[in-house]
Amino acid sequence: MSKGKILLAVTGFDPAVWRKALEMAAPDRTVVEEPDGAEDGSIDYAVVWKQQKGILDRLPNLKAVFSIGAGVDHIFAGGDAPRVPVVRVVAEDLTGRMSEYVAWQVLDHHRKGPLYRSQQARKIWHEDRFQPAAEDVTVGILGLGQLGTDAARKLSALGFRLAGWSRSPKTVDGVDTYAGDAGLGAFLAACDIVVCLLPLTTDTRGILAAPLFDRMKREGPLGAPVLINAGRGGLQNETDILAALDDGRLGAVSLDVFETEPLPADNPLWAHPKVMITPHAAATSVPEALVPPMIAQMDAHDRGEPLRDLVDPEAGY
Amino acid sequence: MSKGKILLAVTGFDPAVWRKALEMAAPDRTVVEEPDGAEDGSIDYAVVWKQQKGILDRLPNLKAVFSIGAGVDHIFAGGDAPRVPVVRVVAEDLTGRMSEYVAWQVLDHHRKGPLYRSQQARKIWHEDRFQPAAEDVTVGILGLGQLGTDAARKLSALGFRLAGWSRSPKTVDGVDTYAGDAGLGAFLAACDIVVCLLPLTTDTRGILAAPLFDRMKREGPLGAPVLINAGRGGLQNETDILAALDDGRLGAVSLDVFETEPLPADNPLWAHPKVMITPHAAATSVPEALVPPMIAQMDAHDRGEPLRDLVDPEAGY
Repeated sequence: MSKGKILLAVTGFDPAVWRKALEMAAPDRTVVEEPDGAEDGSIDYAVVWKQQKGILDRLPNLKAVFSIGAGVDHIFAGGDAPRVPVVRVVAEDLTGRMSEYVAWQVLDHHRKGPLYRSQQARKIWHEDRFQPAAEDVTVGILGLGQLGTDAARKLSALGFRLAGWSRSPKTVDGVDTYAGDAGLGAFLAACDIVVCLLPLTTDTRGILAAPLFDRMKREGPLGAPVLINAGRGGLQNETDILAALDDGRLGAVSLDVFETEPLPADNPLWAHPKVMITPHAAATSVPEALVPPMIAQMDAHDRGEPLRDLVDPEAGY
Repeated sequence: MSKGKILLAVTGFDPAVWRKALEMAAPDRTVVEEPDGAEDGSIDYAVVWKQQKGILDRLPNLKAVFSIGAGVDHIFAGGDAPRVPVVRVVAEDLTGRMSEYVAWQVLDHHRKGPLYRSQQARKIWHEDRFQPAAEDVTVGILGLGQLGTDAARKLSALGFRLAGWSRSPKTVDGVDTYAGDAGLGAFLAACDIVVCLLPLTTDTRGILAAPLFDRMKREGPLGAPVLINAGRGGLQNETDILAALDDGRLGAVSLDVFETEPLPADNPLWAHPKVMITPHAAATSVPEALVPPMIAQMDAHDRGEPLRDLVDPEAGY
């Protein structure tokens, strides 16, 4: 029996490289980028990123949707929820890249990268002796899924103290965990550096805003709290971030994601001396790494095995 | 029986803070900063950094010398070798700080910090898709002592492949080790990023120079090899470093130490776009962390126990 087709529906990524990776990993499946007609019963699975609105409704025999990036909010955008299971990408490659970004930015703030680069530009030789050790700095992770847990583990290995916050209570080795609205204040009061790896849902949209900044730790070894957002731009209120940087509620921020991407040239974040910007590059999705496990899941599902890493459509992540 | 005195002889550090830490940790010992007269038999131990030439020869009852920094070359400088055992500082605090610096700089090169900061300055939104994962990058550590071994372990936890080179053969979990002159070429050919944590001895002086750069890996995921020196300025030839950066044998360097410190304002390293400079700040010696284990060693030695972490005066480290 021949296997069903795969619909590849990605925007913002180059479909050619994803097609190539799919065809390499699944030589026995046909990959198409458009359904054949108003209804196409030959397609079993969809591999998507910000798929064209309504396209999934044209696939009556669709069995599951696979996201090629860590977030899945793009799949549900505009109320366009698929009627079939949605599989998130869970891959060591993607998780490892995100932890690299997090460790990089945490260390850059902890070890005063902006100060030393600014001193170098002015040829100033001056060691800032107010350099805490990692064990004197608490890094808090907002979001304790696959990404947050891995980042916490690696930061802990570097010597930092770790705190973590999630919607529902979780236990992570070596991490002081807090949960829910009730736990958020105590979490924020404990952290010198807050790393946001939350999913974007109706609950979390705009969470990185003044009411949260108001509750962050005021004193600490870094002088003022640092915010790192590698989740989604929709989690943050950029007007509030700029205000908090300017009045000292935030000491510095690293942002990989933005309310509007690409970040418009006239956005004041670009030139702010306390802002480190990367162009949504924290954890790129590499087809060669992510496609083989997707194909393995499709084959297993065809044999009757249950899908893993499913998104809860109610929670939106 | 009252305990012998401690001579505190440090330059380049504030003696007041070291005196305070010594007096806190050893309330039963007297701390002096000068011997009493041409010969002072009341002093048992010396705590030093670049001590005044000849000062140790005035202490006939001196039992041991303690260095307050990781390197000990300063103690032997000018052929002024003490006649008594020299104890190196081995402290988690110092080791941890050095590994923070190493991980910070490795990640900054690996994750293209200079590129993204330069793009931000020009408001350019562009993801460099040629981003290898850590597991595709080999970091090589020159020097597998306490510092090198800890840095290797932490970089390995971040996902990097690790290589290590030492004078005599060593085995370190998860690290491909090479040894001696015979192993140096193969080590260099394997590494995308080379981190130097060697001691400064007659064998290692000037090792970071053209003959070594000539043998470094030409191709690699970072384009050209990266050098990070947090050992001693005397290990490097800055003229050769600049030449190798300019002709592409080196892709970038991070230097925490220099041939002359403070780095003179007219040194071209300051303004070179491929050079990251920190002012000998990689691993600062914190008195509160380093003094208590020194005092514990003095007390143990007075009870007849052998000294630990001794320097080999022949090898110079």
